This record gives sequence, structure tokens and C-alpha cells, in this order.
Amino acid sequence: MPTVWVLGAGQLGAMLKQAAYPLALNVEPVEPDSEHLPDIAAQDIVTVEREQWPDTPITRHLSSQAGFINADIFGRIADRFHQKTMLDDLAISTAPWRVVNTDSTAQDMHTELGPHVLLKRREGGYDGKGQHWLHQSEGGAIPADWLGTGIAEQKIPFDEELSLVGARDADGNKVFYPLTLNLHVNGILMASISPLSRVAHLQPQAEAMLGKIMDSTGYVGVMAMECFRVGDALMVNELAPRVHNSGHWTQAGACVSQFEMHLRAVSGLPLKAPDVRGQSVMINVIGVERDIRWLKVPATQCYWYGKDVRPGRKLGHININHPQTNVVQTALNELHELLPANYNDVFEWVEQELNRT
Amino acid sequence: MPTVWVLGAGQLGAMLKQAAYPLALNVEPVEPDSEHLPDIAAQDIVTVEREQWPDTPITRHLSSQAGFINADIFGRIADRFHQKTMLDDLAISTAPWRVVNTDSTAQDMHTELGPHVLLKRREGGYDGKGQHWLHQSEGGAIPADWLGTGIAEQKIPFDEELSLVGARDADGNKVFYPLTLNLHVNGILMASISPLSRVAHLQPQAEAMLGKIMDSTGYVGVMAMECFRVGDALMVNELAPRVHNSGHWTQAGACVSQFEMHLRAVSGLPLKAPDVRGQSVMINVIGVERDIRWLKVPATQCYWYGKDVRPGRKLGHININHPQTNVVQTALNELHELLPANYNDVFEWVEQELNRT
Ligand SMILES: Nc1ncnc2c1ncn2[C@@H]1O[C@H](COP(=O)(O)OP(=O)(O)OP(=O)(O)O)[C@@H](O)[C@H]1O
Ligand SMILES: Nc1ncnc2c1ncn2[C@@H]1O[C@H](COP(=O)(O)OP(=O)(O)OP(=O)(O)O)[C@@H](O)[C@H]1O
Ligand SMILES: [Mg+2]
Ligand SMILES: [Mg+2]
Ligand SMILES: [Mg+2]
Ligand SMILES: [Mg+2]
Repeated sequence: MPTVWVLGAGQLGAMLKQAAYPLALNVEPVEPDSEHLPDIAAQDIVTVEREQWPDTPITRHLSSQAGFINADIFGRIADRFHQKTMLDDLAISTAPWRVVNTDSTAQDMHTELGPHVLLKRREGGYDGKGQHWLHQSEGGAIPADWLGTGIAEQKIPFDEELSLVGARDADGNKVFYPLTLNLHVNGILMASISPLSRVAHLQPQAEAMLGKIMDSTGYVGVMAMECFRVGDALMVNELAPRVHNSGHWTQAGACVSQFEMHLRAVSGLPLKAPDVRGQSVMINVIGVERDIRWLKVPATQCYWYGKDVRPGRKLGHININHPQTNVVQTALNELHELLPANYNDVFEWVEQELNRT
Repeated sequence: MPTVWVLGAGQLGAMLKQAAYPLALNVEPVEPDSEHLPDIAAQDIVTVEREQWPDTPITRHLSSQAGFINADIFGRIADRFHQKTMLDDLAISTAPWRVVNTDSTAQDMHTELGPHVLLKRREGGYDGKGQHWLHQSEGGAIPADWLGTGIAEQKIPFDEELSLVGARDADGNKVFYPLTLNLHVNGILMASISPLSRVAHLQPQAEAMLGKIMDSTGYVGVMAMECFRVGDALMVNELAPRVHNSGHWTQAGACVSQFEMHLRAVSGLPLKAPDVRGQSVMINVIGVERDIRWLKVPATQCYWYGKDVRPGRKLGHININHPQTNVVQTALNELHELLPANYNDVFEWVEQELNRT
């Protein structure tokens, strides 16, 4: 069996490693700034758990391997200019956008994109970091450090945010999980719900979009597509060519998790329809110390990443899964008592969404 | 977080390690004959994944740690003489037995235990290795190398074999999985089924037995109790003070697997009722090379231990789980096609048992 090297050694790399045991794969996450060049064999596989990586001896070594999967795709997706260009070329709906040149003005942007324009760094943004709003009514200019480094997007008055996680193998076989409803607070994912019958009619539309993206790029592995829903139309917000936080619920709610699915794809093992069970909800643990009482809540699996606690930091997640939605709701009520007050809105949102269907 | 050292580094140790990630525990399985003494910290925990271990510098080092859980229990259970004595002392039903002394004769054994007597090595037997039948009609003697090294058991005309996997924490809290029906072929476990409504009425009896054993010994962690069912009475065949092959189905069929449950118990994290979902069946992969087509069978999770293939060797297991028994049956039919002819009886047995309820 080849070793699967993972560029990046955060929680996604760790969960890939966790998913590897039943497949008898050896998965080795690697920090970009680690000291020693890993000894990679000719038949080994290299995959990634992050969208950007610094240029270091390690990242150069990993990404120059023959077994580096999707080598020519990451650059195109990691730079929003190229990613948006690709979406336009494929005629896949996405928020209208312009590049922010060195001589762009706020007025240009408002003329072309409307009164509310969101600047996003071409590279490196995550969790809503690397964004800047331009509201015409406020008359602000483009800050100097954004000139030549960003794109500008039209503000989309979306109804809600959905994501689709899918996988493609080297033969072009594709599988998809059901659409996931996501709540972001201040740009950071707080909760996901899947499946959701009221958006099931959008599943074919979403699969066609992500399928086209994966096929046209020859992508192999798991890819996540973040979407805005506007009525019955989906617009791509952004792509993540890796396992994705909005797919963490698949650890509890699917026969094959997104982590195992990714490993199957990159290592040439067969994909399988993920066979989703019951209702799943995922709550992200952001900046909150673990409370071991979470471990006693029925129908619940807690993932604690073992990182130092810092405000705003992703420290773990809690998967709730059960065939009966009312059992999921009871678990959520118990967890609500055990999380700080800033989670009130999150639990309220989940409850409302679960009752809506 | 303390490290949890595991004495033994086979598949059980690996699956404990796999279960540790969400708990942010560092689990380190250790081979008894590895070269370097691990550097164990004062607050670290030592547990085991095997019932017997050779006396090596490593095993002496691990088992002399202050954090070695159940230190005084393993010896009592690893020697069938002490284990059976303990069961008798607790008035827990077990096959009638005698010690095989240096001067015991087959005639003594038949007089005391009946026409069919099973010799078992006091220590070290597994998968039915370390057994010798004495049938009075055949007039055989006790082989010389069994004198002083074995016990003799009455043959139990059992209806079937059931096991109970439970866990106890240091405060005496206990949880149990449902009784599991096991098929052994030539002394080796081939398949398990759980839950099974037709044996649910025996659950309180089984829990009382295992609960008494764990409480009286002050045991902490997962323990498995192998039983014979004779009508509505359970008799203990043997105890395994560790995670157990007949509990592997809990990886797919319970909210907390036996591996996670064991880690929770030994590391002082709270236990939780395991919340069993749907119908589970486990098929052991014995002496058969992995076929990657198994990975495509719906409702199925394959564990491949990555060991060299040898006849009679446990190489992996396949968990089938689904809320609907007919889906489980369909998966079994697909797997049946993909396993060799010696599995025909196994699949026939499972099918029969699933249809019986
Ligand atoms: N064009 C837009 N109109 C309205 N809201 C937007 C737009 N683009 C982004 N947002 C909001 O900002 C959030 C973060 O945006 P985006 O996903 O592009 O950023 P990110 O920092 O890359 O996030 P992630 O952590 O998902 O990688 C979105 O989930 C959405 O709530
Ligand atoms: N007293 C008995 N009467 C009839 N059959 C028995 C008896 N004891 C054992 N057996 C049969 O032999 C099998 C193996 O026995 P036992 O569990 O004691 O051996 P083992 O080698 O320790 O197995 P394991 O791999 O479970 O540790 C039992 O599962 C049962 O099928
Ligand atoms: Mg992003
Ligand atoms: Mg995003
Ligand atoms: Mg045994
Ligand atoms: Mg046994």
C-alpha cells in the first residue's frame, strides 16, 4: 500500500488519518514548516488539506512529486481571480465580479456591481478574514492595500447558504452527499444541517454544477462547493478542493464519511454512494473550551482537536445524528445548556430550520 | 491530556488509536518485544489489548506503571484456573470444571464431568487453539503435556453462543451493549449479529452477571463475557478483559463504539449509553485476501488490518449496518458472492438468524 502524504497537518489532516485505518492506508499529514523532508516513495500519493500553502522546502518537495494529485488545479482555485474566471468559462452561476486593479476606484465597482460590493483578497482568505465591504452610501474608497490584490463581488441578497460535497475518482465516477444548509456568523461556519427535504429539489442542479467543475478540471478527490440559494437558483460562492467543514456531519450521518471518500478517490479505491442515515446537525466549537459533559449527550459525537483555546479558533465540532428529528432536537437542547450565550442564535437557527420542514 | 499506552499493537490497539482522535487522546500501542522502552509520564495511562503477554523489558516496564489500569485483575482472568475459581466464588454460572493435576486421569474427569470433556490450557489459548477433547467412548487418556497445564470442562450442549460487551468507569458506572449472537467455526469467531430481539429478555440476566464481575473486581474499561445459552439460562464460557472481536459491530451500529467506550473509561471521561442503531452484522475476514469490491457494497464498512495473508489468520472484518434488516440482507447477499466457498455456511447461518426474528 502506498503512503498518502497530506500537505497540511491541522484537524482535516488528522481526520483523514483517522479515516485511513479501515482502508489499511498509511496517511501522513505534514506541516509546511516541518524540519525534515519526508521520504516519499515513487508510488506514494500526495494530497492536501489546505487551499493555500507557504513556499517552503517541504511544500516544494511535496508538490513536486509525481503522485501529487490535482497538481494543476489548486493554483486555479486558490486564486479567486482564476476561480471566478473558471466558473464564468464553465457558465456556472456565481456572484458577478470584477478584478480590483491597481487603478480601480470604488465608483467603478459600484457602477459595475451595484451599491454593495464585497472585496475579497485573491488569495489566503478564510473564515471571512480577507473581506472588505464597500457601501456606496458611505462613499468609502478602495483601501490602498486592496489595489491589485483583490476581487470585487456584487452583494448577493441570498435566501440562505448551501454547500455540496462531492467526490470524483480518476475514472470520472462521481458521488455526492445531500445538500447541506450552513449558518455563518461573522464569516465563520457555526452550524450545518443535512439532509433537508425542502432543498432536495435543488440536488440535481447542485450536482450538475459541481460535477461539471470536477469533470472539466479532471479533479480527483473530495471537493466542496459553497452556494448561495436565491429562490430556486444556486450561485457558487466559492470552491474548496478538499474535505470541508460543512461535510463533517458525514462522520456520523453517512456510511462513508467525506474523509474516507477522499482517501478512496486519491488512492484508487472504489467510491460508493454514501448512504445517508437519519438527520444530522453539526455544531462548530469556536473559541470555547471543551466541556466533558458534551460527551454524555445522547445521539452526539464530539470531536475535540486538542488545540490551544483561542477566541474565534475552530477547536472541535459536535455531530448530532439520529433517525428521529425529535431525538436530534432533544440532544440540541441539552447541548444548548452546555454552550455559552453566543450560541443562543445558533441553536435557535437550527431549531427553526429543523421545524420548518 | 495523558497518553494512553496500550500493551499490544495488533488490530485492537490500532482500532483503539483510531477511536482516540475525537477525544483528543494520544493512544500509543506498544509491541511487547519492541526495542525501546517508551517514556511514560507519571499521569499517563496504561491499558492492554491482549490477555497474555510475554515477560519482556517492555511488558515489565508498562505493567509496573502507577497508571496501569486493572493491574491485579489480568492475572486472575488470564489463567483459566483463577478465572473459573472467581466465577464460582461469585456464584456465576459457568461450565462445571476441574483442574488437570499432574496425576489426573481421563477416568477421573469423566466420572466428575461426564462423557465429553474439553481440556483447555490454563493460559494462552485463543481462537480455539489450546483445546483437547476427551470422549469417554474413545477411551483416550490425558496427553502428558496437559498434565498440570490445563483445566477440564464439561461439554455444554448449548443452544447458541452469546456475548455481552460492557464497560465500567472508576466510579462504578456501567454501560452495556445488547447481547450479540456469535458463530464460531472450529473455535474461531466467524460472524456476530446484534441486536436480536429474541434474546432481549436475557439482557438483564447477562448484565447482572457481567456487572457483578466488573464490580467485584473493581474493573475499569471494556470487558467481554462469552456465554453459552442453554434454554433461558446463560453460562459464562470465558471472560476477556479488553475490547473484543464480538464487539466490532459497535463501530457501525452504536453511537459510541467499544473502542471509544474503553478509552473513555480508562481515561476518566464519562461513559454514555451506547445508543444502538439498526441491525448490525459483523463478518470476520479469516485467511482471505481483501477484495476491493467489498468496498462498494452498500450499508457496509470494511476494516482491513493490513497484515500478511495467512490461512486461519484474522485479517479484517466487515460491518454491515442498516435500520432495515432487508437492506442488511441484500448487502450480505452481495458479500456472499465476493467471499470464498468456506463462507457459505456463515452466510447461511446469518440469513437464517436474521429471518428467525
Ligand atoms: N457576494 C457575496 N454577497 C453576500 N455575502 C457574501 C458574498 N460573498 C461572501 N459572502 C458572505 O461571506 C461569507 C464568507 O465568504 P467566503 O466564503 O468567500 O469567505 P472565506 O473567508 O473564504 O470563507 P471560508 O471559511 O468558507 O473559506 C459567506 O459564507 C457569505 O456569508
Ligand atoms: N465447555 C464447553 N462445551 C462446549 N463447547 C465449548 C466449551 N468450551 C468451549 N467450547 C467451544 O469452543 C469455543 C472456543 O472456546 P474458548 O472461548 O474457551 O476458547 P478460546 O481459544 O479462548 O477462544 P477465543 O478466541 O474466544 O479467546 C467456544 O466458543 C465454544 O464454541
Ligand atoms: Mg474560503
Ligand atoms: Mg466560504
Ligand atoms: Mg479466549
Ligand atoms: Mg472464546
